[in-house]
Amino acid sequence: MNYIKIPMDIEKKSFQIIGEEMGSHNFTERELAIVKRVIHTTADFKYKDIIYIREGAIDSALSLLKKGTTIYTDTNMALAGINKKALSKLNCRVECFVAREDVAKIAKDREITRSMAAVEKAVEEGVEFFVFGNAPTALFKLKELTLLNKAKPKFIVGAPVGFVGAEESKKEIEKLDIPMITIRGRKGGSNVSAAIVNALMYMITR
Amino acid sequence: MNYIKIPMDIEKKSFQIIGEEMGSHNFTERELAIVKRVIHTTADFKYKDIIYIREGAIDSALSLLKKGTTIYTDTNMALAGINKKALSKLNCRVECFVAREDVAKIAKDREITRSMAAVEKAVEEGVEFFVFGNAPTALFKLKELTLLNKAKPKFIVGAPVGFVGAEESKKEIEKLDIPMITIRGRKGGSNVSAAIVNALMYMITR
Repeated sequence: MNYIKIPMDIEKKSFQIIGEEMGSHNFTERELAIVKRVIHTTADFKYKDIIYIREGAIDSALSLLKKGTTIYTDTNMALAGINKKALSKLNCRVECFVAREDVAKIAKDREITRSMAAVEKAVEEGVEFFVFGNAPTALFKLKELTLLNKAKPKFIVGAPVGFVGAEESKKEIEKLDIPMITIRGRKGGSNVSAAIVNALMYMITR
Repeated sequence: MNYIKIPMDIEKKSFQIIGEEMGSHNFTERELAIVKRVIHTTADFKYKDIIYIREGAIDSALSLLKKGTTIYTDTNMALAGINKKALSKLNCRVECFVAREDVAKIAKDREITRSMAAVEKAVEEGVEFFVFGNAPTALFKLKELTLLNKAKPKFIVGAPVGFVGAEESKKEIEKLDIPMITIRGRKGGSNVSAAIVNALMYMITR
């Protein structure tokens, strides 16, 4: 059988097809790199219309990545999807706080979701780069802590997916004056979150 | 703030909303459990129309899961998304062959993709349950080995996502007379693959 076998060739060709099919847009070149990677991951052109990239968000993300930051994720899937070679080149690290044993204990003791406990723990440990692909409650919690001046996030990917709370959680987080990229409505997910982070890292590493 | 904090309540409510909004269909109860979980993971109702569940596929998958099988995945993301508690209850295991060092070496030496080398290795080790959420080339390879009578897969999730080869790979694998669930067209992905596997496991464990 005759088919393209080199992963980088496949990616290049895919991005070309996406560019041809996505039609007119007003994205900058850097924004486009993010949008295309999200479409590449989902084969869903709808993301072109529902992604929100706040002015200055890319610069904030890149400056965190350049100084070597810890990235918070709310699922092991998002963690798995974030490119480890690029992370390592940047001296960054990623941690799924939700999967930690101490976080599970706090959640159980206080009858809150693991995601909420995870955000508290991450804030305590000084995390500034937050990636949410799953848990709406975590976004509500981060907003709460930010308004109380207990959290100072410098960049947020807000992309929980789902039918209960996801859309509302993204509307709420957008009310904060913080650099962020969100997926509006019900869509999003771990794969989408990881694609956004990868696109940002590749702006520096590739 | 007042919002649902118990994960199981959120899931139940989500499935109810999906049921209300998905409209008419001809799925059996077990098929519906799979379709709803895929929509739950993606917030994309389109999956209702593009999922293909071959007759007998659910029974084949369940009998493998009940005897304690090894599940092949082509990404660490799909691996991360497969529920470990359910796996453990079933005495099953999951492995991302693509991430193995020996597979990387074979791929490099023979100038094939890691995914192709991974399939060869899995077949060699007697794997019968295959999950593809990423790599079209792996599906082509499994078809090739099956036609040569070297591989005897008993259940396949065929859900590579993308713009180069994904759709074709799924058309090709469907030509084999093997129990399978596929996502037709360009859509699919690690998250979708994991959702399908979880839905199958929950039929036994929940």
